[in-house]
Amino acid sequence: MSSAHARPTVARMSGYTPGEQPKPGERVIKLNTNENPYPPSPRVFEAIGRIGADALRRYPQPLADDFRAVAARVHGVLPDQVIAGNGSDDILQIALRTYCGPGDVLASPDPTYSLYPVLAELADVRFVTVPWAPGWTLPADALLAQQPKGIFFANPNAPSGTWVAPRDVAALASRTDALVLVDEAYADFAGESCLPLVADHPNVLISRTLSKGYGLAGLRFGYAIGQPAIIEQMMKVKDSYNCDAIAIAAACAALDDQAYAHEQWARVRDERERVTRALAERGFDVIPSRANFVLATLPGGRPAKVVYEGMKARGVLVRFFDKPGLNDKLRITIGTPDENAAMLAALDASL
Amino acid sequence: MSSAHARPTVARMSGYTPGEQPKPGERVIKLNTNENPYPPSPRVFEAIGRIGADALRRYPQPLADDFRAVAARVHGVLPDQVIAGNGSDDILQIALRTYCGPGDVLASPDPTYSLYPVLAELADVRFVTVPWAPGWTLPADALLAQQPKGIFFANPNAPSGTWVAPRDVAALASRTDALVLVDEAYADFAGESCLPLVADHPNVLISRTLSKGYGLAGLRFGYAIGQPAIIEQMMKVKDSYNCDAIAIAAACAALDDQAYAHEQWARVRDERERVTRALAERGFDVIPSRANFVLATLPGGRPAKVVYEGMKARGVLVRFFDKPGLNDKLRITIGTPDENAAMLAALDASL
Repeated sequence: MSSAHARPTVARMSGYTPGEQPKPGERVIKLNTNENPYPPSPRVFEAIGRIGADALRRYPQPLADDFRAVAARVHGVLPDQVIAGNGSDDILQIALRTYCGPGDVLASPDPTYSLYPVLAELADVRFVTVPWAPGWTLPADALLAQQPKGIFFANPNAPSGTWVAPRDVAALASRTDALVLVDEAYADFAGESCLPLVADHPNVLISRTLSKGYGLAGLRFGYAIGQPAIIEQMMKVKDSYNCDAIAIAAACAALDDQAYAHEQWARVRDERERVTRALAERGFDVIPSRANFVLATLPGGRPAKVVYEGMKARGVLVRFFDKPGLNDKLRITIGTPDENAAMLAALDASL
Repeated sequence: MSSAHARPTVARMSGYTPGEQPKPGERVIKLNTNENPYPPSPRVFEAIGRIGADALRRYPQPLADDFRAVAARVHGVLPDQVIAGNGSDDILQIALRTYCGPGDVLASPDPTYSLYPVLAELADVRFVTVPWAPGWTLPADALLAQQPKGIFFANPNAPSGTWVAPRDVAALASRTDALVLVDEAYADFAGESCLPLVADHPNVLISRTLSKGYGLAGLRFGYAIGQPAIIEQMMKVKDSYNCDAIAIAAACAALDDQAYAHEQWARVRDERERVTRALAERGFDVIPSRANFVLATLPGGRPAKVVYEGMKARGVLVRFFDKPGLNDKLRITIGTPDENAAMLAALDASL
């Protein structure tokens, strides 16, 4: 009997573990995967409702031209500086496969988004990490010492919520020919962005997503902005029709409604400060966050796993990372005021 | 000034060229990219209309469980024999990256779907072709002589529309440990499938799409069926959330409405026979097709390019391939009766 064998790289790996999902029908307060607590703009539903038979029957725009036009206007760049993807995971993978080949090095500060090593492994790229420098600043020398072809990090960072100043990113980018990918999945909540760096730095790529800031994790829509030469190469690597017609229409509507989006970001930021204070009052050490979550160290060296499980038993899901340096911490997504109050009550009962 | 350089593999390639798209507002009869001339099931629009804010706000099902359940029921397999993808292009790429590493060989009969070499090149996989055996039958010996890790072909084949009998696929699969991927993008129009082979052949994978048979090219939804051991490995390679919540809901509705789909397939098959006869009456040599298109050789050795351009000038787009063995032929998608009549009129005027 013949049988197919996955290639060794794949056979030995375990794959990325997505955040825990509640079972269908299960009622939980879900503060573990950094979704936006507020619904997407009403214009998104209008756009979806306008989708006709021909839009579904025919192939979509290969380059998502409609979205590139909206993104160019909103961000003050040219359409050929924009590439759209099936979630920013797609963007990250396209960028990696454009700039890093088998045996090349992808470098990241540690900890950061846990998907990067999975993407690197799948592409036979060597993933190398170096610890963040004191105060969660960029360890530029140590990163460059790895002679990487790509440097990826989240800014604001996950799971710390910390922010690297654009001038520090610029300084790093000026010292290397590697692709410096700034994963701004959470930048909408930071009130600041590295986007202006793109003008002067031909090796800086800014990755964005509608999953967090625009309440559209279910839509899978991300994009990246860089100089046209980067985007042109990435276009060769992406799937021919990587964004579907409904997603393109919905994404245009969401990004175009900046007023609605800014309102939600402000609400999340207000709640973030309130939750940070409430946790500090309980003795937690909370890293000041620029994202829509906080990373909090438990008081008195308590093991976070027990508290995580206690909260889960009370119907509140937060994120626990079972790895050194993180296993005394909980990462808590900022929810609505009601959700945050319920989270704090479950926390108090579990401490 | 620092600048990023795409890796050599990417820098030297030109990328896949999607079929020509009409400009927005341009009125053309589009018979060049094998879309279904009929709209998707009305149930698809009902499913899209039911999408709520939470479905968009939250991450979708990582494995598209709802779709796996529907596909399992429709095809008489188990849910863990199904993997869903962002179009069958996503499925093809996942399969390739699961079974073929850098330097490995992917083999295909020639000509077949022109995306395979692009996917192989991007993965640093060696793509090797061997000509189809006489009568468009599988060149099994020549394929196996390449010692491939994967063998990919479309069945019905594109652009020929020809069909390889399941027993011949079974014979090939029994002689190798390579993954034998049967790309059944057009099988809905064939009235036959290699799906039953999966039960006895642990190295056979059947790829399907909703783009053609279900009138959903704009939705980007494909899937594959194989033994659970294959699917399990492929799950490690796919993006964590490769299908969005709207696409999953729409795909479930489309696949579930088999009665509607069968009706459209019968209409396309009837028209295919009518178009085949009409072309034969005009002196074309038409390969009997099992797909929703026909490949027709022009009478009297006329260059197909001139006729393609003449039809285009008259508002009818068909597909011309500027490569040896195909440049005396046109590939014509089967449209509605009215579209086919207009196509024949434009053809007559262009001959």
